[in-house]
Amino acid sequence: MTTPSLTIRPPSGKLAVLLPGLGAVATTFIAGVLLARRGLGSPIGSLTQMGTLRLGGPNGERSSLVRDAVPLATMDDLVFGAWDIFPEDALDVARHAEVLESRHLDPIAEELREIQPMKGAFYARYVRRLNGTHVKEASSKAEMVEHLREDIRSFIRRHGAARAVAIWCGSTEVFLPPSAVHQSIEAFEAGLASDDPGISSSQLYAWACIKERVPFANGAPNLTVDFPAAWLLAKEMRVPLAGKDFKTGQTLLKTILAPGIKARSLGVHGWFSTNILGNRDGEVLDDPDNFKTKEASKLGVLEEILQPQQHPELYGDLYHKVRIEYYPPRGDAKEGWDNLDIFGWLGYPMQIKVNFLCRDSILAAPIVLDLALLLDLAARAGLHGTQEWLGFYFKSPMPTPESRPEHDLFIQSMKLKNTLRWMIGESAERPQGGGSFE
Amino acid sequence: MTTPSLTIRPPSGKLAVLLPGLGAVATTFIAGVLLARRGLGSPIGSLTQMGTLRLGGPNGERSSLVRDAVPLATMDDLVFGAWDIFPEDALDVARHAEVLESRHLDPIAEELREIQPMKGAFYARYVRRLNGTHVKEASSKAEMVEHLREDIRSFIRRHGAARAVAIWCGSTEVFLPPSAVHQSIEAFEAGLASDDPGISSSQLYAWACIKERVPFANGAPNLTVDFPAAWLLAKEMRVPLAGKDFKTGQTLLKTILAPGIKARSLGVHGWFSTNILGNRDGEVLDDPDNFKTKEASKLGVLEEILQPQQHPELYGDLYHKVRIEYYPPRGDAKEGWDNLDIFGWLGYPMQIKVNFLCRDSILAAPIVLDLALLLDLAARAGLHGTQEWLGFYFKSPMPTPESRPEHDLFIQSMKLKNTLRWMIGESAERPQGGGSFE
Amino acid sequence: MTTPSLTIRPPSGKLAVLLPGLGAVATTFIAGVLLARRGLGSPIGSLTQMGTLRLGGPNGERSSLVRDAVPLATMDDLVFGAWDIFPEDALDVARHAEVLESRHLDPIAEELREIQPMKGAFYARYVRRLNGTHVKEASSKAEMVEHLREDIRSFIRRHGAARAVAIWCGSTEVFLPPSAVHQSIEAFEAGLASDDPGISSSQLYAWACIKERVPFANGAPNLTVDFPAAWLLAKEMRVPLAGKDFKTGQTLLKTILAPGIKARSLGVHGWFSTNILGNRDGEVLDDPDNFKTKEASKLGVLEEILQPQQHPELYGDLYHKVRIEYYPPRGDAKEGWDNLDIFGWLGYPMQIKVNFLCRDSILAAPIVLDLALLLDLAARAGLHGTQEWLGFYFKSPMPTPESRPEHDLFIQSMKLKNTLRWMIGESAERPQGGGSFE
Amino acid sequence: MTTPSLTIRPPSGKLAVLLPGLGAVATTFIAGVLLARRGLGSPIGSLTQMGTLRLGGPNGERSSLVRDAVPLATMDDLVFGAWDIFPEDALDVARHAEVLESRHLDPIAEELREIQPMKGAFYARYVRRLNGTHVKEASSKAEMVEHLREDIRSFIRRHGAARAVAIWCGSTEVFLPPSAVHQSIEAFEAGLASDDPGISSSQLYAWACIKERVPFANGAPNLTVDFPAAWLLAKEMRVPLAGKDFKTGQTLLKTILAPGIKARSLGVHGWFSTNILGNRDGEVLDDPDNFKTKEASKLGVLEEILQPQQHPELYGDLYHKVRIEYYPPRGDAKEGWDNLDIFGWLGYPMQIKVNFLCRDSILAAPIVLDLALLLDLAARAGLHGTQEWLGFYFKSPMPTPESRPEHDLFIQSMKLKNTLRWMIGESAERPQGGGSFE
Repeated sequence: MTTPSLTIRPPSGKLAVLLPGLGAVATTFIAGVLLARRGLGSPIGSLTQMGTLRLGGPNGERSSLVRDAVPLATMDDLVFGAWDIFPEDALDVARHAEVLESRHLDPIAEELREIQPMKGAFYARYVRRLNGTHVKEASSKAEMVEHLREDIRSFIRRHGAARAVAIWCGSTEVFLPPSAVHQSIEAFEAGLASDDPGISSSQLYAWACIKERVPFANGAPNLTVDFPAAWLLAKEMRVPLAGKDFKTGQTLLKTILAPGIKARSLGVHGWFSTNILGNRDGEVLDDPDNFKTKEASKLGVLEEILQPQQHPELYGDLYHKVRIEYYPPRGDAKEGWDNLDIFGWLGYPMQIKVNFLCRDSILAAPIVLDLALLLDLAARAGLHGTQEWLGFYFKSPMPTPESRPEHDLFIQSMKLKNTLRWMIGESAERPQGGGSFE
Repeated sequence: MTTPSLTIRPPSGKLAVLLPGLGAVATTFIAGVLLARRGLGSPIGSLTQMGTLRLGGPNGERSSLVRDAVPLATMDDLVFGAWDIFPEDALDVARHAEVLESRHLDPIAEELREIQPMKGAFYARYVRRLNGTHVKEASSKAEMVEHLREDIRSFIRRHGAARAVAIWCGSTEVFLPPSAVHQSIEAFEAGLASDDPGISSSQLYAWACIKERVPFANGAPNLTVDFPAAWLLAKEMRVPLAGKDFKTGQTLLKTILAPGIKARSLGVHGWFSTNILGNRDGEVLDDPDNFKTKEASKLGVLEEILQPQQHPELYGDLYHKVRIEYYPPRGDAKEGWDNLDIFGWLGYPMQIKVNFLCRDSILAAPIVLDLALLLDLAARAGLHGTQEWLGFYFKSPMPTPESRPEHDLFIQSMKLKNTLRWMIGESAERPQGGGSFE
Repeated sequence: MTTPSLTIRPPSGKLAVLLPGLGAVATTFIAGVLLARRGLGSPIGSLTQMGTLRLGGPNGERSSLVRDAVPLATMDDLVFGAWDIFPEDALDVARHAEVLESRHLDPIAEELREIQPMKGAFYARYVRRLNGTHVKEASSKAEMVEHLREDIRSFIRRHGAARAVAIWCGSTEVFLPPSAVHQSIEAFEAGLASDDPGISSSQLYAWACIKERVPFANGAPNLTVDFPAAWLLAKEMRVPLAGKDFKTGQTLLKTILAPGIKARSLGVHGWFSTNILGNRDGEVLDDPDNFKTKEASKLGVLEEILQPQQHPELYGDLYHKVRIEYYPPRGDAKEGWDNLDIFGWLGYPMQIKVNFLCRDSILAAPIVLDLALLLDLAARAGLHGTQEWLGFYFKSPMPTPESRPEHDLFIQSMKLKNTLRWMIGESAERPQGGGSFE
Repeated sequence: MTTPSLTIRPPSGKLAVLLPGLGAVATTFIAGVLLARRGLGSPIGSLTQMGTLRLGGPNGERSSLVRDAVPLATMDDLVFGAWDIFPEDALDVARHAEVLESRHLDPIAEELREIQPMKGAFYARYVRRLNGTHVKEASSKAEMVEHLREDIRSFIRRHGAARAVAIWCGSTEVFLPPSAVHQSIEAFEAGLASDDPGISSSQLYAWACIKERVPFANGAPNLTVDFPAAWLLAKEMRVPLAGKDFKTGQTLLKTILAPGIKARSLGVHGWFSTNILGNRDGEVLDDPDNFKTKEASKLGVLEEILQPQQHPELYGDLYHKVRIEYYPPRGDAKEGWDNLDIFGWLGYPMQIKVNFLCRDSILAAPIVLDLALLLDLAARAGLHGTQEWLGFYFKSPMPTPESRPEHDLFIQSMKLKNTLRWMIGESAERPQGGGSFE
């Protein structure tokens, strides 16, 4: 990691962005890129497009836009593909999702109309609340993987793309712990052939992508690429992976607030979080088995940041509860309410309440864009396996085998930026005590 | 700053902590230390007592309590002195303040009773809402400084203290911009002799302390030690300074949230902050001239963190408004309500509302403790002038002449910890992209 | 008041609705009526259109829509006129106000375009933040009244209206207590001739309307029609009046919550209310003299409902504070935040916090409609002077000389409905203990 | 009900207040009465002690304290008895409950110590989360009723009480719909003999009380006295009943806000309510079967107030969701958060958010006092069966057979007060349009 010179292949040609799940998130992402290309909208929330990088050494004051300093593909280079279990095209989906207003959809209606989903690979047992009608048939999961691989190759061919990346934008699946089938490439391939119930739909997409050398990021809390067989295959195929579960609303705020509370050595007795949302995601999470997957993803955050074992007096009895409530009046405009019971000097209690009126897809769309561009960058730089430095974007950042997940947004951000600096031969940032002494 | 070996004199003997302003903050601080000494309370919120430091290089996983790794004075070493413009002793003040409950004051009542304030140096024009009765008389401000110096020497002598530090815990004074009298030691000394109206009460304490080689921190937004003459005198006397305005409630949260929003490249249209509080601080701030001093301190925060000139599309039209409302039903249990109008992808608006039910003195007390111990450390290490690395504790961190103020709590925290590491010969922390590539 | 038979003239012909102030409220009202006529929108929030009346005696279970039971003019009967100090027509004003979306303005654009304001009667000293460009000239206030009267007659003539009503939808003026000039018709007429500074612009409109026998309601907290000379003239001319200050957001909630707290004999130590809004109203109220008028209107509410003199133990030390903050990011979508410090059994404290994300003009528009129809009804029924039963719609309900203002929304609602029942010969509602005993 | 003269027996002698369930609510109630007797606390929240009654006809301005106008027993007359399934005395229970501070418990410690619960009648299947150790044994439910009757008689005898009332202050039981066994006195008596599973513990207390002519109120949402056999027996024994489920925190606010929203003809799309609490009640409600009972009680409120069938355009699609979350950091200091999605003019959406930091037992205690005194009044006045006019105090007001439940707090309050007026020969209040017309 000290080698300053890393060879990064240039981002020439078109980049196919393949999206399993053409719902509110995917269409908001696509529409935003199409609008931004025409100067009709701004990709707010995207670090690659709006963010800056300080350059010039640990105390460097020179600053550059990320997209100017780092050899990324541009938004103009992207072509979009998707799979879904419903046949609606991107325009219809976007209109029904009610995330973007007509003034944003009208100018790009034609382009959206042309984005029609390929049939989905779908086994209903993993998402019981949905009843897909636009699904592939296959005699086995192994065959399903082959169909998906053929889809990928065909899409790339049809659009003349030079490279591809894939981002899971589908639903949360029921809770599935890794089992024997997930421990090696051979076991997994055997499981595909025998329709092992431990292999969910999203794992099929991931497997197909890795086989096709398509970098893959997972926006949901599912297993998908978070098991040894996937890591091993990614290593073998030299494919970068990232995951999991886009960090959008409440958890985003949690990973901002918790490090601040800890920095000040304040204690926390309890943290209660509830969410109300009315989109398809909310409907799926109304099924307790699917919620369990999401809950596991959301609960780990505080423990990793606050480290109660190291600070038992401050965080040893922390009671953390997370709820997601399906509440149709809200649609995609989800809302979080958090209550923190903290304590200070001599144990005196205080409370912080945070009410976040957010928009799920608006917060997720720039993450999709950044992940597409950064995974492509990683692949061109020869990186592979879990990209821990992309943990910034995820509720459940997948660690490398030798590390623990890092949830602190500020450390995540510094890791991401220092990794970008390293890739372009800049030295890391290292904030230090000012020069007020001699 | 690269020299790893810094000689720090050991913290032997008693450390006098001198507090101009024996109000709710000062007595809560004193009572907490007295209780902690007896094992009857825990100094929650104090980084020096509860916080940890990662050691062993940039990726070091060894961790130690700050107070074990750094040669600080202990809570047992402290003796407390104070000035105030009212004659009540620390016990009466604490009872009236209604911050600590009887169960906390009863066991240490006798010790608190013995802490009786020295008469205050007070010119009513700087704090019009208060009408002090326990005040020094002097024929000029210069003579007032001499009285204060005599108080300091006498206190140290009486208590057999080896060293002293001073922390301003008094009220906010009316807004006073630095004037000609503040530009050089000579001008200031002349101003003292001629009772220049630009020299407020708090500046007299600061000047007396620096003259006596007593490190000084300023917990209020007043000028106090934030002007060239004070810096020059501190350099001459080799005295460390820190300031200004304890970062306790709403601004603490603001410097936690704003960096998080910026890290995600989200935009901000507006940030409205209101506070309700009913203690003496609230009463003083009900005077618009005193509020102006506080407002200036509170408003700078966002601009410095978000840097609108560098990110005009995200923060160029940010409307920031801060209000403090005197509201007697609350006493010391102040409450902040913030509304943030943020925006994301394509400009879609979202809102964050934060309601902080905090306790002013409970949040300030550990800061007083940390500053006392860290300023004493700085003095023993031979540091002097503005200690920019202590900006972590302040709403308006005083920068060094060559730097800009840093408000981001996470950078502040890293600066403070890296400076401590540097002082004990450890290398700085530098989060970097995980080892997921070869 | 016991006479069951009251003669009400039928609502035949067109009703002119004259609006001093063609801003966000007025255009939202007009647009809503135009849309409702075409079946493109629903007049939600209007008691006359959506509300019901229980009929058939004190325990009557028969229920009817108000508009079916009471002989009101219909929305189809209305024609709209306005004065303003800016020349924009209703369409331009509505577009700039950003209250209604394009999908609501487009279908009625032509009709709105035709509504062009008559020049305003405006003396800048009463609203210093506005700088009107579309104003009448007159040699005296008396002449100004004559110009306005001519406007009224000419409008009625031009549109062939059978009757007219006027609703003040203009800005809040600076605080003006009633003075000698307001005590009699003669004094007021003399003041008009001599340009008495106690006579503000809104009073000129009111005087002109009463002279023309046009019923007048006041949507702002100004004096306008709330002084003896106006009452006397209204009596002489047999014109009904109503006022003052539309009860829309925070005060609406206050008059809902306070009666509930009182019903349960809970105590209140403090009530803090703050508002953020960014429309023209907010800009005007940023001037402390104009805010004073609004503050007086908002502060009276709690005292009248809770009656501290009668319940000193519960409300004797109530601290009530109201703030309005100009905050441009919000436009018309104002927001209130209230904190209530209440107490119960043995004095234990509790808190209620209310955050109301409301829309000023959306809440005011149905009030304009109701007042237009109900004042017209009152006039046709021969009622005149202050219509105390319309207090339901106002922050500062104008009482009759012999009564105190009633702020409790539930009593206001019952008064309004019982008065309607009385007008149509129905007996009043009188909730009583159920028949569970013999 | 028109007879103005009702004979009310005078409240001479002691009144036994019998409480099944000696927990936080019961001990807070008892402690408050004991303190109030000594002048050491005030029964805030009690309508009978703090409230007033307007007298002197429909427009009467004379006002009197309820306790002065109506012949109620006084707090001095009360003696307290209780049953519980744990053996702790009232002092221990109160200390563990952490509702009242030491300063309130210390002066009455001795009196509380003496209040020791009688053994509880407890069948674990109805409250699975509790594991009672201080329970009666009986060969059948019929025998259990006899044991309870003997307890009642013995308590009255021991304390020389003239009369008794009982208030259920125990836990919420699992959801039990009324079945055949609840339809007649005979069926119920047979069910007692055969240990019918439809008969829960609380029903045994109620049956025993009615048999002993002890008026009974139910503070929980259980069936208890809300079934035909209980009504019939109450009629036969001439015993008044009241219920059910004390209206304390969130539902109290809901029945204040909803009538206000309806009065203004505003629409409601959704109402989401969540509660966090950490007391025994919260623990019991963490069992979904017990929560179901509470949920049914809480959900009915809005429908009854808003009457969607009568106002389909405003409330036809209302989505109402209620959650209760066990959250130990809070203890008895429960907190509610409500989000209301309302809409106005042309359907534009607005939001109201209410955060209620309340205290369960502090709000319930005065209800226990009022119900004890008012049920005793009812009995002395010869009233019996369900006292619908006491619905003011309940989340699920039990209606009379011929009426629907009334949830609107303001109508409930008027009903209660008009019933009191009727009992003392005063005529009902009837707010009407002011005298502003001739």
